[in-house]
Amino acid sequence: MDLTLVAIILGLLAVLYGFVTSRQVLGSDAGNAKMQEIAAAIQEGAQAYLKRQYTTIAIVGVVVAVLVALFLGPVPATGFVLGAILSGVAGYTGMVISVRANVRTAAAAEKGLQQGLTLAFRSGAITGLLVAGLALLAIAGFYYYLTAIAGHSVGGTDRTVVDGLVGLAFGASLISIFARLGGGIFTKAADVGADLVGKVEAGIPEDDPRNPAVIADNVGDNVGDCAGMAADLFETYVVTVGATMVLTALLLKNAGDMLAPLMALPLLIGGVCIVTSIIGTYFVRLGGSTNVMGAMYKGFLVTAVLSIPAIYGALTMALGDMGALIGAEVISGAASTNIDGTLVTEGVAEVVGGFTGMDLFWCSLLGLAITGLIIWITEYYTGTSYRPVRSIAKASETGHGTNVIQGLAISLEATALPTLVIVAGIVVAYQLAGLMGIAYSATAMLALAGMVVALDAYGPVTDNAGGIAEMAGLDDSVREKTDLLDAVGNTTKAVTKGYAIGSAGLAALVLFAAYTTDLKEFFPTLDVNFSLENPYVIVGLLLGALLPYLFGAMGMTAVGRAAGDVVKDVRDQFAGDPGIMAGTSKPNYARTVDLVTKAAIKEMIVPSLLPVLAPIVVYFVITMVAGQQNGFAALGALLLGVIVGGLFVALSMTAGGGAWDNAKKYIEDGHHGGKGSDAHHAAVTGDTVGDPYKDTAGPAVNPMIKITNIVALLLLAALAG
Amino acid sequence: MDLTLVAIILGLLAVLYGFVTSRQVLGSDAGNAKMQEIAAAIQEGAQAYLKRQYTTIAIVGVVVAVLVALFLGPVPATGFVLGAILSGVAGYTGMVISVRANVRTAAAAEKGLQQGLTLAFRSGAITGLLVAGLALLAIAGFYYYLTAIAGHSVGGTDRTVVDGLVGLAFGASLISIFARLGGGIFTKAADVGADLVGKVEAGIPEDDPRNPAVIADNVGDNVGDCAGMAADLFETYVVTVGATMVLTALLLKNAGDMLAPLMALPLLIGGVCIVTSIIGTYFVRLGGSTNVMGAMYKGFLVTAVLSIPAIYGALTMALGDMGALIGAEVISGAASTNIDGTLVTEGVAEVVGGFTGMDLFWCSLLGLAITGLIIWITEYYTGTSYRPVRSIAKASETGHGTNVIQGLAISLEATALPTLVIVAGIVVAYQLAGLMGIAYSATAMLALAGMVVALDAYGPVTDNAGGIAEMAGLDDSVREKTDLLDAVGNTTKAVTKGYAIGSAGLAALVLFAAYTTDLKEFFPTLDVNFSLENPYVIVGLLLGALLPYLFGAMGMTAVGRAAGDVVKDVRDQFAGDPGIMAGTSKPNYARTVDLVTKAAIKEMIVPSLLPVLAPIVVYFVITMVAGQQNGFAALGALLLGVIVGGLFVALSMTAGGGAWDNAKKYIEDGHHGGKGSDAHHAAVTGDTVGDPYKDTAGPAVNPMIKITNIVALLLLAALAG
Repeated sequence: MDLTLVAIILGLLAVLYGFVTSRQVLGSDAGNAKMQEIAAAIQEGAQAYLKRQYTTIAIVGVVVAVLVALFLGPVPATGFVLGAILSGVAGYTGMVISVRANVRTAAAAEKGLQQGLTLAFRSGAITGLLVAGLALLAIAGFYYYLTAIAGHSVGGTDRTVVDGLVGLAFGASLISIFARLGGGIFTKAADVGADLVGKVEAGIPEDDPRNPAVIADNVGDNVGDCAGMAADLFETYVVTVGATMVLTALLLKNAGDMLAPLMALPLLIGGVCIVTSIIGTYFVRLGGSTNVMGAMYKGFLVTAVLSIPAIYGALTMALGDMGALIGAEVISGAASTNIDGTLVTEGVAEVVGGFTGMDLFWCSLLGLAITGLIIWITEYYTGTSYRPVRSIAKASETGHGTNVIQGLAISLEATALPTLVIVAGIVVAYQLAGLMGIAYSATAMLALAGMVVALDAYGPVTDNAGGIAEMAGLDDSVREKTDLLDAVGNTTKAVTKGYAIGSAGLAALVLFAAYTTDLKEFFPTLDVNFSLENPYVIVGLLLGALLPYLFGAMGMTAVGRAAGDVVKDVRDQFAGDPGIMAGTSKPNYARTVDLVTKAAIKEMIVPSLLPVLAPIVVYFVITMVAGQQNGFAALGALLLGVIVGGLFVALSMTAGGGAWDNAKKYIEDGHHGGKGSDAHHAAVTGDTVGDPYKDTAGPAVNPMIKITNIVALLLLAALAG
Repeated sequence: MDLTLVAIILGLLAVLYGFVTSRQVLGSDAGNAKMQEIAAAIQEGAQAYLKRQYTTIAIVGVVVAVLVALFLGPVPATGFVLGAILSGVAGYTGMVISVRANVRTAAAAEKGLQQGLTLAFRSGAITGLLVAGLALLAIAGFYYYLTAIAGHSVGGTDRTVVDGLVGLAFGASLISIFARLGGGIFTKAADVGADLVGKVEAGIPEDDPRNPAVIADNVGDNVGDCAGMAADLFETYVVTVGATMVLTALLLKNAGDMLAPLMALPLLIGGVCIVTSIIGTYFVRLGGSTNVMGAMYKGFLVTAVLSIPAIYGALTMALGDMGALIGAEVISGAASTNIDGTLVTEGVAEVVGGFTGMDLFWCSLLGLAITGLIIWITEYYTGTSYRPVRSIAKASETGHGTNVIQGLAISLEATALPTLVIVAGIVVAYQLAGLMGIAYSATAMLALAGMVVALDAYGPVTDNAGGIAEMAGLDDSVREKTDLLDAVGNTTKAVTKGYAIGSAGLAALVLFAAYTTDLKEFFPTLDVNFSLENPYVIVGLLLGALLPYLFGAMGMTAVGRAAGDVVKDVRDQFAGDPGIMAGTSKPNYARTVDLVTKAAIKEMIVPSLLPVLAPIVVYFVITMVAGQQNGFAALGALLLGVIVGGLFVALSMTAGGGAWDNAKKYIEDGHHGGKGSDAHHAAVTGDTVGDPYKDTAGPAVNPMIKITNIVALLLLAALAG
């Protein structure tokens, strides 16, 4: 049977899982009338926001689709539209499940902690497996259509398949940056605004129904942390697996009979890991203890361990003999398309080794190990049991200033271990199987996306459940349980972001290799010098590293500005109707939701276009000044500059934000004076600062890096065509 | 006359200026007995700290000197010791002047604003010209000794001169990172600690004599902002001018008769700009207005404008015919030592253009223009008249959280324009005269160091003067005048840091070129691949970019920890003797100074050794895993990674910190509720956060970058020898 079809079937299995499990979730108790009323308000707000967001994105999307069609032809444009629509579907569906699971989780938590965990985690698993399944279906389906139905071949001079896959990745990336950033601005503007005017000014607790911004805050969890995150991971999956296939098509084009199974192999790995992810979800149980993080780990470990034989099986199925050398004969035949991308000085013969199926297996295992290590490091930096979070909590005793200083110190420090892990991953994978090794490590990382996203998507559901319990006036014991469930949410949310940006570190090398290989193919006579000795390479690196800074600045400013608007609106509502604070009249929740919606949509446009336009501007300006070959050199360096700069910006922001949030929770648990103490006030400030760090600017760096890379690939194709 | 001797004479002129002007400053009224008593306490504390700091550094220095002597021989070791000692002299002398000028400035401000400005600026100018003069004397004197007296030649196979200059730079850099970091930790631990426990907890104003940490805070201004800064700029000068000479010796070794004047030319440019800097200092006057920044600008502009003909004169004096081509014949003769460092594929003949004296003149002008632009951009981001600072002040209205969010957003944004200026500088200079063009732009930037440091060193003097006026109970009008003088201090301090890191951006390319040239000379058979296509290059870039993050984390943590100690000590003193708060008994200032001293010394060691050890570890680990040529490739990439990462860390921290500080000042001037308002409290938090950003972690990145580069050069020489 065609391996791609197997992958498609496994992708459909994920969708089936989502369908069946969502019926279970939706069939459970939806709580009392008051709870349902609150949930309906959140649903309505989230739907209204996403509708407006996707309408705006659609306008940009249509313009870009037309441009892609004009410059690159109908297939890339179709890929773009497909990627864009499925990214939207992944985000939207995630939100739909999430806004229905929240109230049901609150109701289930009335019965017990395990019940609450089961319901919340199942709804997270639906999102997780839909993201992985839809992403796999998008690539596998489109690839199957192009090759088996439309009859395009890989490996010859026909570039249709490669261009189509790049177009697909572009669609997924472009939508996801808008969704990540728009959702991120929405959720944090509402959260920061609600906290500032509620907790700080009016002195009412979090999630108090008298706060007009409280529904907006809960809507934000769904459109940002759920829908935005889902779109982001959909993008990461499509780009990483797609890049591995593109690199295979470019580097191994002469592999003959092996080319077809090699192209399908990344899809197959994704497919078998969907099965292991589904199995893993059933192992997330407390087993008598109250260690929620432990329950999560059980599920992840089962998935990771089962994935080892599953990936081995996939490799054997595709390659047959695991010891046979792949690639070596290709190199000896064609010196210009060498397998590992090292610069071979022209005229100098160099022997480059190929790789075996076993090498790819070890590289895949390396990817699983990197994922595990990143989870472990993230828990260390954001969990309440370890030095970093506790040091921030302790620094809160001496005030707001020292809390923020220590938080910033931790955020800077938190970049070190993940970077060392990624660097070690690059070195080992490259030693094992060259660039293809790095690509397989990244692919194996993403193959676990179903499980990783499940852990993350669980967070906003429990967060909302707590809010609903508070607003509906449920017994305090319910809120205690949802708080217990929510406590690990900060860590799991940080995990996904570290995981996404970590995989981007590997994928960036793969995308850069695709860029240089394409460049050689499209402009064979141009001697582009990517050496660090070429000052235009330094120029490109510096400009690339600047992008995440500028992007982060825009995201942070947007949140600050929109949060300020929220504060003003809430103040107005309080001033206009004293009955709100007295609890006798209801605030106008919809007005605040509407205000944040407009602000988020307006603010997401310019920063999202930055990574689209920057590569084009840099190429043309440097070409004008120093010739086309330096234009291409600077553009290539820009692609790596954006990951060299962006990796640190993203890691520091997401880990730092998580640590600040949990330092606050740690104090609220009764340490350093507990709730209401001076240390707590300082910790609330730190949490507020961390909010746009971890949920707006930081995570959006990941799709930004990809877009820059993909735009460069498309620019190359457009210039050549 | 020997051009080097001319430079030496001009360097001596700077020292003479320092001597004469310091007699003027010391001869002026030193205030009443109470003021002198306070000043004496500050002096004593500063002297005690620096004594202990330099003793500790000396121990490290002796160990390193022995290692340098063992691995590289006596000349580099002598250079190292010379650079180290003169760096210490520059820092120490700056402090000596500063602690005596502070009380005299307070006394002069009693007479009038112009009198205060004149005295404070003169003392700044002494430090500025001593830094530039001593740096010039160090290089010119050592170079003269090596060539004219010891008889070593440049351009042949004798590497003594090059190795000696690199050793000199290493000495300057190693001392300066300790001084910058140690002083930075001292000043900010004292400042943050004093503010937290004084302003926030006890509710007493800044510089209140009842605060036991108040003398430590004032000591900090002198040992950090003055001595540390002076050592830093001394280092920047020595490394930049030294690197230009090293590059000349390596690239233009076959220039024959032109080589000697080309070697002396950077020294001569430095020399003539000492004259223009001295002239400029006499133009810093208010001229009836109260625009202190305007007075500063006048002085700088006079220096910059006069430097244009002065540099032209220096070029003509050295080169004679400004239109004659330099370098072109060298290239045609020896393809492997091409002038601009572009990778020439072996066996392919490439014609590389030389450059003329006029080209170097335009590049020097470019350096002056970059300096002017960086000053202008820094003023925009840190001055109270523009959007950035005002946006932070406005965000303070909604609390601590939004103040910090907006401050972080501004700090991220503030990297963009300087980066674009540096990138444009690289492109234009390279177009004009290749790598030598970039080196001359950087040299011309540093030639203005006398003036730029003067503007900076003025700041801590006025800051101290205000403190003394407050503590001595002088009339409020005096404090108002010192506040007016001090207000521009935040901007001028930020300017120097932006200037230093900006020049490092250019110098890094020069140092990298020295590295690659040395590599080819020492290991001619090794084909090191610096292309971005080599994954070990990416590994090096990532590890290099990590260094400033890790370094920043250590610096921030150190300040937080030491400030916490200060808070505890002050609390103890308040609790132990209620008479302190009542004003009836004197706090034990010396105890706090001593505590901060010990903490700063202890905390500066490990982060300072990071850039020394990192290149060595990376080289050996990668060599072990992937062979020596990849070890050298990763090491080279590390050098550029540290600037690509460090430029943004340093720019964002120094500009952001300055903006936070001035946002607080802006509110204190009566905006957004003024002193004591909620906005003011939030702004104090922002200022506290900005303190270690701008005065500890941020500025120390500059020497860190240099050390990494110099250690790599020394490692190469050691491996070859």
